[in-house]
Amino acid sequence: MLEHFKSHINKFVKVDDDEFIQILSYFKRQTVKKKQNLLVEGQICKVNYFVLQGLLRKFFVNKKGGEQTTEFALENWWMTETFSYLNSTPTEFYIQAVEATELLSIHQDAYNDLLDAHPAMERYFRRVYQKAYAAAQMRVKFIYEHSREDLYHHFRNNQPAFLQRVPQYLIASFLGVTPEYLSEIRKKRFS
Amino acid sequence: MLEHFKSHINKFVKVDDDEFIQILSYFKRQTVKKKQNLLVEGQICKVNYFVLQGLLRKFFVNKKGGEQTTEFALENWWMTETFSYLNSTPTEFYIQAVEATELLSIHQDAYNDLLDAHPAMERYFRRVYQKAYAAAQMRVKFIYEHSREDLYHHFRNNQPAFLQRVPQYLIASFLGVTPEYLSEIRKKRFS
Repeated sequence: MLEHFKSHINKFVKVDDDEFIQILSYFKRQTVKKKQNLLVEGQICKVNYFVLQGLLRKFFVNKKGGEQTTEFALENWWMTETFSYLNSTPTEFYIQAVEATELLSIHQDAYNDLLDAHPAMERYFRRVYQKAYAAAQMRVKFIYEHSREDLYHHFRNNQPAFLQRVPQYLIASFLGVTPEYLSEIRKKRFS
Repeated sequence: MLEHFKSHINKFVKVDDDEFIQILSYFKRQTVKKKQNLLVEGQICKVNYFVLQGLLRKFFVNKKGGEQTTEFALENWWMTETFSYLNSTPTEFYIQAVEATELLSIHQDAYNDLLDAHPAMERYFRRVYQKAYAAAQMRVKFIYEHSREDLYHHFRNNQPAFLQRVPQYLIASFLGVTPEYLSEIRKKRFS
């Protein structure tokens, strides 16, 4: 599975086997169970997670007491709570495993040391964040332009494997609709 | 005004006067008039803009033919269309000056050369994008959690100088409401 991490890095920058082994030494390998929390509201987020195998989600508890999912991370995605991480403020979010998940985790201190020692990784993270920012920008456009129903069909057409894998109540939580309403959207599609 | 750019860089990384002068040589200084477009739908975005003085906005034309503003950039903010920029695909957005604006612009080729020659700028942009991503994440949370009316009051309490400066029809375009509805929200507040 570590090969996937190496391939991922090499999509953004060139890192040879020796350097990759050094880079790995800044990370910890971690296994979390289904529904285990990696971050809980009120904590200060100090860790960035890379998914080797499995699925994480980020959510917050809204005013009505419901869990509003804002982000998923599948294999080869990073997951952290960047705002709390950067500002050392208590987070408003949870990070939770949707499935049993294998991770690489890197603490903020190790991250800073890694970037000092490996300029290639500075470039790697600059490109990763640039890409993540581009995706966030398109997401804001999508939210303004489309209904929750459109968003479901967009997912269905573009990420069918992902939809198969995520429980329906979490899809509903991501779309910001009730599971009952999601069920209606799905039925409509097939009627 | 270039002093502001230097101070901005030095908030993220340390750059001395000599290096700053070298860094500046990768940029062009540019003045745009009020309502002038820097980017038009269908173009490929190859430039990143830093606002020295003035105000830019990004918008797209929605299905109803209206201009939906998604982002503003005041002094010391960057503005580009990251998705088109990264993927070399035609943009779905416009970038337009709200006021007469003084800019520094950097073309993608010069940007890549700059980052090769000045590792401090690689770190600078990694931190800028990390921060922009954190803000985008909080924005998605805000959109899920609050009404357009809440968003107006949030702006009003946190960015009063900004609200003073931006014409009402653009605030409405950012909130995704009609200027008439915005006028009602404002009246309600004072009634």
